[in-house]
Amino acid sequence: METKIKFIGYVATSIDGRISKNSSASVNWTSKEDWDFLQKSLSNVDAVIVGYNTYKISEDRFKQRKTIVLTSKVSEPKIKGSIILINPKKCNLSQFLKAKNYKRVAILGGSYVYDFCLRRKMLDELFVTIEPLVFTSGVSMFNGKEFKKYKFSLQSIKRLNKNGTVLLKYKNEN
Amino acid sequence: METKIKFIGYVATSIDGRISKNSSASVNWTSKEDWDFLQKSLSNVDAVIVGYNTYKISEDRFKQRKTIVLTSKVSEPKIKGSIILINPKKCNLSQFLKAKNYKRVAILGGSYVYDFCLRRKMLDELFVTIEPLVFTSGVSMFNGKEFKKYKFSLQSIKRLNKNGTVLLKYKNEN
Repeated sequence: METKIKFIGYVATSIDGRISKNSSASVNWTSKEDWDFLQKSLSNVDAVIVGYNTYKISEDRFKQRKTIVLTSKVSEPKIKGSIILINPKKCNLSQFLKAKNYKRVAILGGSYVYDFCLRRKMLDELFVTIEPLVFTSGVSMFNGKEFKKYKFSLQSIKRLNKNGTVLLKYKNEN
Repeated sequence: METKIKFIGYVATSIDGRISKNSSASVNWTSKEDWDFLQKSLSNVDAVIVGYNTYKISEDRFKQRKTIVLTSKVSEPKIKGSIILINPKKCNLSQFLKAKNYKRVAILGGSYVYDFCLRRKMLDELFVTIEPLVFTSGVSMFNGKEFKKYKFSLQSIKRLNKNGTVLLKYKNEN
């Protein structure tokens, strides 16, 4: 019997829905508590999916995990140690993941990858960490071509620290 | 003795920080519970500040309130019943509000007005209602010219309904 893979998104955002200054900026503005939560969560997944920019920002850390990098830079899947570069336009990603027998896969962004996974029904749960900052500019959490209303339901709310970092857990209801 | 005016922002957003489809779209996607909260809150303010697009979308409702509309369409303040159109580039807005003896003023958007008030130190508190939806596209909560880190602190968290609409109250710490 085939088991469905569970796809779990993790995103850290400002109050105003921005995830970074620009696509090559490092993610060094989040709280220790969010970092600890993410590391603990990732110890329970079989692999992570990221975009090429997100991969390049933290290359050394991704080298220590089963990491699937979505990129248009390759035509055939390309393996570098624990890293696999895949062009989802030229390879059936779902089939690839099933063949690997993965049970739980983490989606770590950036905004094109979150959008890609949401559209492809590869985002069953979404953990959103809201840091108590407003950026007013920068990269938005999702980067979609068209406005849609994807329904989610809130599973839990947790306050992570004194400053007021909030962790929301959502289930995809689409 | 002069009392400082308290400026309180109210914003309803998707999980991904979008406040509408586009600048002329009506705000009919928020929950009844958020609507009720907003109406109750507005009964305790002396005036509301909005941008011209936000004003036009709900003109009939704003006509029933003391409404300050920020717009570049006028050079001198222009009064239409309870509505005052002001060009903040050609009029000292703070001075105008002080002369009116306002104590509490609500900031109701859109994204340019939220950004304007934040930069001008006219946003002491911010109530953020997060509806359990992802839009992937649309108007961002704040529209600033440059990336900045404005610090806020979380005052309270409240779940407004079964679907998981969340109301966060922040204090501006800048």
